[in-house]
Amino acid sequence: MSSIPYTLKRAVLLAASSALLCQGALAATLNTQQLKTLENLKKDALNSDTSYQIIESLTTEVGARMVGTEAEKKSVTWAVNKMKALGFDKVWTEPVATPKWHRGEARVSIESPYPHTLVALALGGSVGTDGKTLKAPVVQFENLQALKDAKADSLKGKIAFVSYRMERHIDGHGYGMAVGARGAGAAIAAEKGAIAYVMRSVGTDTNRVAHTGGMRYQDGVKKIPGLALSNPDADLLLNQLKRNKPVIMSLSLTANPEPDAEVTSYNVIGQINGSELPNEYVTLGAHLDSWDVGTGAIDDGIGVGMTLAAVHHIAQLPQRPKRSVRVILFAAEEIGLFGARAYAKAHKDDMKDHVIGAEWDFGNGDIYQLTPGVGPSALNNIRDLATLLAPMGVSLSSENNAKGQSDMSALGRAGMPAINFDPDGSDYFDYHHTPNDTLDKVNRDALKKNTAIYTMFSYFAAQSDVDFRK
Amino acid sequence: MSSIPYTLKRAVLLAASSALLCQGALAATLNTQQLKTLENLKKDALNSDTSYQIIESLTTEVGARMVGTEAEKKSVTWAVNKMKALGFDKVWTEPVATPKWHRGEARVSIESPYPHTLVALALGGSVGTDGKTLKAPVVQFENLQALKDAKADSLKGKIAFVSYRMERHIDGHGYGMAVGARGAGAAIAAEKGAIAYVMRSVGTDTNRVAHTGGMRYQDGVKKIPGLALSNPDADLLLNQLKRNKPVIMSLSLTANPEPDAEVTSYNVIGQINGSELPNEYVTLGAHLDSWDVGTGAIDDGIGVGMTLAAVHHIAQLPQRPKRSVRVILFAAEEIGLFGARAYAKAHKDDMKDHVIGAEWDFGNGDIYQLTPGVGPSALNNIRDLATLLAPMGVSLSSENNAKGQSDMSALGRAGMPAINFDPDGSDYFDYHHTPNDTLDKVNRDALKKNTAIYTMFSYFAAQSDVDFRK
Repeated sequence: MSSIPYTLKRAVLLAASSALLCQGALAATLNTQQLKTLENLKKDALNSDTSYQIIESLTTEVGARMVGTEAEKKSVTWAVNKMKALGFDKVWTEPVATPKWHRGEARVSIESPYPHTLVALALGGSVGTDGKTLKAPVVQFENLQALKDAKADSLKGKIAFVSYRMERHIDGHGYGMAVGARGAGAAIAAEKGAIAYVMRSVGTDTNRVAHTGGMRYQDGVKKIPGLALSNPDADLLLNQLKRNKPVIMSLSLTANPEPDAEVTSYNVIGQINGSELPNEYVTLGAHLDSWDVGTGAIDDGIGVGMTLAAVHHIAQLPQRPKRSVRVILFAAEEIGLFGARAYAKAHKDDMKDHVIGAEWDFGNGDIYQLTPGVGPSALNNIRDLATLLAPMGVSLSSENNAKGQSDMSALGRAGMPAINFDPDGSDYFDYHHTPNDTLDKVNRDALKKNTAIYTMFSYFAAQSDVDFRK
Repeated sequence: MSSIPYTLKRAVLLAASSALLCQGALAATLNTQQLKTLENLKKDALNSDTSYQIIESLTTEVGARMVGTEAEKKSVTWAVNKMKALGFDKVWTEPVATPKWHRGEARVSIESPYPHTLVALALGGSVGTDGKTLKAPVVQFENLQALKDAKADSLKGKIAFVSYRMERHIDGHGYGMAVGARGAGAAIAAEKGAIAYVMRSVGTDTNRVAHTGGMRYQDGVKKIPGLALSNPDADLLLNQLKRNKPVIMSLSLTANPEPDAEVTSYNVIGQINGSELPNEYVTLGAHLDSWDVGTGAIDDGIGVGMTLAAVHHIAQLPQRPKRSVRVILFAAEEIGLFGARAYAKAHKDDMKDHVIGAEWDFGNGDIYQLTPGVGPSALNNIRDLATLLAPMGVSLSSENNAKGQSDMSALGRAGMPAINFDPDGSDYFDYHHTPNDTLDKVNRDALKKNTAIYTMFSYFAAQSDVDFRK
């Protein structure tokens, strides 16, 4: 998106907002008293450190919580207790069947022409090397398409290396351009005879830590190990390849997928009950699981902190809003939205009662835009919301096509209206899926502001009786 | 230093510089023809990528080069060959006896109250845990002084943790404030009965990689393992300690000091021979060794690149300057200036012929200041140099007390006049002694400018016949 229309739009909305609030002209969705409550909630949230304290608690007392680990079980108990302590009316869990995977250790070296030890991580779901060390020449490809274009059998006995460098963008769309090589690269390389697959990390940082993330095998194609090199190590490998001598890599990996060892994880769900329409749910999503390499502060501790804090702030009001506000902390997002899909299946029959939903799973930048996915009539109410949020620097997207982000896409696909809050994601992929995803990366000022926006949205949608489907 | 006097001084020098150059008024040190040559050298260096290419070659073809490793041996051959290829007249090595140390692997965890795996590195020279895993409560100290103040025997059976957080400063003086805890902490903790010593990394970054660096034991005091935690892990440990429950840490380390297994390393020395005073040496220093965790691009690949490139540029002139320009790539700096001390000893008798020396071992920021350490009469010539460098953003320090930085301090102590080029070191300790010390951290623009300054200084001092001792 260009910044000029955004800035202009914001200025117009800012002006509109002050005028409208003074005149109570937003009564189309909320009345004057409700608008006053909303402004008080905003102040409360902006002055509160609750969302940060929740993230601090989760990352300190639980930390990394990958599916199938003891820590993940602990995270479920932690979440149940935290919701209760924060004043939720009803807290429960719903089971989710998931596969299990053990990362193990990756040892990767360049053997020749110039020996180096490289920093790498297994891609999520990768097989290991069965106690062996593989040793083979490296063949480089600029991107996934170049790998796809390689001739059949051309990689026989080789290690394929995709060197594509992810681009940094405010909306994170560089991820979409890069992540295909992570998901599909190993299978495509194996089809052409490769014995292992390595790739430049899908990430925008220059730290010597690798980025993990899920990968997939294809039925009928040999499963070969898939690994990501840290970005400085990918540079080093490229600099060796540039010298036009064969580059021999050795690689061992103790990763261990257990696709048959199904484990049970849990979506943790909590809500404050609506005072008039308790069976209508304004739904806030985030995921509780994390990869095992960081402490899951950014991905998705922030989502956990913001959603729980938003409901907590509303729970402090003397009266519950009309509708229920429900937080779903999804299980097993990282390994393929298992929690979200289980939720959508279990709630097939009451999905119609999920009046609108938002997911937070994109870090900690300032929210600069909201994008709805609602019926044409409800768009007027979304404009009211946008007017209220304009002074927080949020503009209204010209699109009305949101289907729910991350986990919420499963509910969006099942027909739930959605709203996306788009934060500045420029630095998100510096930390995402790396050991650097730790508490110190949380921007406490942005977190307060974003939590306030979430609180305002939740109250706005729960206190109205708008049908966002219409 | 304050920025106002610096800026003022710079403005004055800038004005002075242009005026003086036009009038050839710097002939006190160099004549008009020589000044013209110097300006051409400056242009050549500013347009050249040679210093970067040297660093690229060293980090790609050798990489980490810790004392006693095969890679360190290779670095000596690499340096000899590189100097020859760059047009040095004379290249040789001088042996340096050094101790040997093997880092091994550090495994550190918090066992309770909340289990976490932490990222840590052994401090250089640390003993290991003899195949055992130590498990003990952690006692925290704000800084080294607080540890010193602890009562005798108060740490019996405990693990001491110094949590001091290094400050970021342009001149890196936060390092001096922090590094005492690295050098002396383990011995002091051991004196009070501790079984291991851990500290927050001496570094300014927030990456989940630890900073290594040398430590010392004390005679008669038990040698206990010394480790640095990554900064996010130190935060995490503090957050657990805050909860006022005993924090139990477990720790194993396969480090292996071999103080008796003396190895021979080599200072690599190369020079272009002076045309009139070949036995007088303008001396440029850097160190060739690195820690084993990064590829030694910043510490001190940059010093290697700048010093070799400076001499290379001067070697391209049709005529050698009057004096010799000598580069010393010192061995074994990281483990205690072994190469520098060996050089000072071996060159005791000709130290008087080392007319002036400069070391580069402080990264890649723009040089903003020069600080001489010369005789009162030579200060006039240093002012001439400062005038020439002023357009490059370099001011002249009001001090005249430089004794040589890093390795060069050994030569400074032996009576060699010194000049310090002070770069902006604000980000140096983000990378220094960590796995993140890799090629991508090199700022190619600053490198060109700093190499030009080094080239100008070298030519200036070698083409003059100033006695910098007087």
